[in-house]
Amino acid sequence: MSKPTPISGFPEWTPAQRMIEQFVLDRIRATFELYGFAPLETRSVEPLEQLLRKGETSKEVYVLRRLQADTDGPAGDDALGLHFDLTVPFARYVLENAGKLQFPFRRYQIQKVWRGERPQEGRYREFLQADIDIVDRDTLPAHYEAEMPLVIGDALRSLPIPPVRIQVNNRKICEGFYRGVGLTDPEAALRAVDKLDKIGPAKVAELLAETAGASEAQAKACLALAEISAPDASFADAVRALGVSDPLLDEGIAELTAVVETAAAHAPGLCVADLRIARGLDYYTGTVYETQMIGYERFGSVCSGGRYDNLASSGNARFPGVGISIGVTRLLGLLFGAGALSVSRDVPTCVLVAVSAEEERPASNKVAEALRSRGIPTEVSPSAAKFGKQIRHAERRGIPYVWFPGAEGDEVKDIRSGEQVAAAAGEWTPPRADLKPLVGPATAGA
Amino acid sequence: MSKPTPISGFPEWTPAQRMIEQFVLDRIRATFELYGFAPLETRSVEPLEQLLRKGETSKEVYVLRRLQADTDGPAGDDALGLHFDLTVPFARYVLENAGKLQFPFRRYQIQKVWRGERPQEGRYREFLQADIDIVDRDTLPAHYEAEMPLVIGDALRSLPIPPVRIQVNNRKICEGFYRGVGLTDPEAALRAVDKLDKIGPAKVAELLAETAGASEAQAKACLALAEISAPDASFADAVRALGVSDPLLDEGIAELTAVVETAAAHAPGLCVADLRIARGLDYYTGTVYETQMIGYERFGSVCSGGRYDNLASSGNARFPGVGISIGVTRLLGLLFGAGALSVSRDVPTCVLVAVSAEEERPASNKVAEALRSRGIPTEVSPSAAKFGKQIRHAERRGIPYVWFPGAEGDEVKDIRSGEQVAAAAGEWTPPRADLKPLVGPATAGA
Repeated sequence: MSKPTPISGFPEWTPAQRMIEQFVLDRIRATFELYGFAPLETRSVEPLEQLLRKGETSKEVYVLRRLQADTDGPAGDDALGLHFDLTVPFARYVLENAGKLQFPFRRYQIQKVWRGERPQEGRYREFLQADIDIVDRDTLPAHYEAEMPLVIGDALRSLPIPPVRIQVNNRKICEGFYRGVGLTDPEAALRAVDKLDKIGPAKVAELLAETAGASEAQAKACLALAEISAPDASFADAVRALGVSDPLLDEGIAELTAVVETAAAHAPGLCVADLRIARGLDYYTGTVYETQMIGYERFGSVCSGGRYDNLASSGNARFPGVGISIGVTRLLGLLFGAGALSVSRDVPTCVLVAVSAEEERPASNKVAEALRSRGIPTEVSPSAAKFGKQIRHAERRGIPYVWFPGAEGDEVKDIRSGEQVAAAAGEWTPPRADLKPLVGPATAGA
Repeated sequence: MSKPTPISGFPEWTPAQRMIEQFVLDRIRATFELYGFAPLETRSVEPLEQLLRKGETSKEVYVLRRLQADTDGPAGDDALGLHFDLTVPFARYVLENAGKLQFPFRRYQIQKVWRGERPQEGRYREFLQADIDIVDRDTLPAHYEAEMPLVIGDALRSLPIPPVRIQVNNRKICEGFYRGVGLTDPEAALRAVDKLDKIGPAKVAELLAETAGASEAQAKACLALAEISAPDASFADAVRALGVSDPLLDEGIAELTAVVETAAAHAPGLCVADLRIARGLDYYTGTVYETQMIGYERFGSVCSGGRYDNLASSGNARFPGVGISIGVTRLLGLLFGAGALSVSRDVPTCVLVAVSAEEERPASNKVAEALRSRGIPTEVSPSAAKFGKQIRHAERRGIPYVWFPGAEGDEVKDIRSGEQVAAAAGEWTPPRADLKPLVGPATAGA
């Protein structure tokens, strides 16, 4: 085999980075469960027709083909693609299992997704998402739109990462406002405003004229709306000051006010009403969310979502939902790239049991067994080399303790301090901070 | 959308089953870490040329294709396939990162794999594997072959599943013995004997004659070897009684004796030397493992692996390894199918906070926040319906407690006993057994 090379867009973390990722996933999952979300995994593949319902993303889909497809295989094998998010599979799952589920159904889902995009900085072709969604049958109370940021705020606050700011908007505000100023194609207007960060206000005004038929005054009003941002319900006054009136606009203002006020009661400073947030995906119908990590704003949102009323429906059955998705790979990719996270060692091991001679290995195994039975991660030395070499084996991995079995009693050495004390495998316990690798923000100079 | 249907071979567990699976994965992972294995995830895709190095499995590979592949995409996109196990990607990872890794390198890896096989009972096209491997540079001490069953024994014993029996053999015994009786193509003989369970001894004898050129006496000797099985080192006497002598055979007997004796010292009854175990994959060169779950023997191995000396090598660099893989989906599929596992409720939620009126929701949110801050999984009621309806909401999900905020103090009701007591959200704690869903073997009649 010639030396293999990385494949662009398919990241692979080091074992140390994977330890950090697992720590992060455990914390996220614990928060999701504290809020009563049940776990779910869906298969990685969906029928292509499901994946292509949203035209915009079709070019990103990876299609599967069996290498030696034969005629006796089940039909339709060629019509499977890898999912590109967890919302579309979840909507499908709800429809397929509606008869067995209890509604409202709260679930979390932490899985890989795949997008065959052209690779670029910060874009991955395979990445991990951590989603929560709540779906209900027929109608979904608006208070769930206010709950989402609380969950995400708690989940991200439990991590050793910079603080985040969740930017919230409501599609009803945009659509109601656009209609209120007399635009007849609010979706086109939304798509134009969605490009504000990328192309700036002048170009958005041009686009509004071209694609949504906006007059100069209408475009100006749309841009004025998009400029509104407030950490509290005062955004509503700013909207009303623009003098536009529409029933859908009023509904959106009331809903967004509830989201911002609920968030302020729970976690002051977490949420900000930001009326430029549009989200590209067509299926959102109410609140939409994006999330900036402070200090990493230029890299875009690390956690996004919104309310969707029409994603899961079949005949008369309709399952409106709201969801939000943490881009775990994206988040970690940014922080790993900045060297902003650290772990105290490269292996889970707390103790390396030395081997004095190969025929004494069973005695070292017994020590390891006793330590493990009390929850202490332990390895036995690979060889009966000189003790200096065995200690270096531990040192290179950051294993803090080396254990020496002895005919007249065992000893354990803290190889950082050099301190060596008598110890019994059935009793000795390391300091709590040494038991497992510690994950945290990288310390200066690390 | 028309009602979607399952896709054969791509299983999806219910949320309750997924809770059981997560419990199982947490336990497996904890054991792997107790033994000092570091976590690793590799990308889901490998270059096709990597996946096809073992000819036998090529028909199982799923190839990826971007739906709208364009000429400006990176070359080679069409030459990617989904991995069909975790050993081949791991070997590739070791070669790619050899300069950055510390050897011997112990890693575990818990990931989905995909095989485009024709679906049949107990066979999946997408399934979860939990692997451990140890690789070293140049040479790998044989004691690691004895360590594998200890880890697996501990991991599986930590689960609420039937006991297992790990069947162990050593390729050197088979190859040495076949050479010792005068067969010149030991691999052909191995492949024939590997079919013993499927086609029986008479057909294997025919196959040995046809494919390995065995005489009647040679075939009889091969079958006699395959019949040897012992829970201890006495298998060696049985082999020697067959009167065949070969240096490789002696080496294999010594190694297998060490594996069986180490296992017996650690976990009596866990391992059995079973000389019919061959494993289909060509890359094994030493100890091989299969695992039967007692009562489910007819479904085949739930945990397999072996030593491979030549999987990861490049130029002069050579990384022999030994590994074993728990077929998590296979294991759980069998137990779910038999109704042999249960979880005490369908959601993580321990407490449902009732809402007396929609305008009182913030008060209920405050209670939930206080309970969650002390680690108690809590949901707030979806609506301010009559309390009877809110209680039924909890009942249907198995949520044990409903909390009633009140102007003159809160109360909490155990809806199983009906007992309702005064409580404060900052102090009340549920019994430990109620805090999280309990996973265990299904009780009779459940």
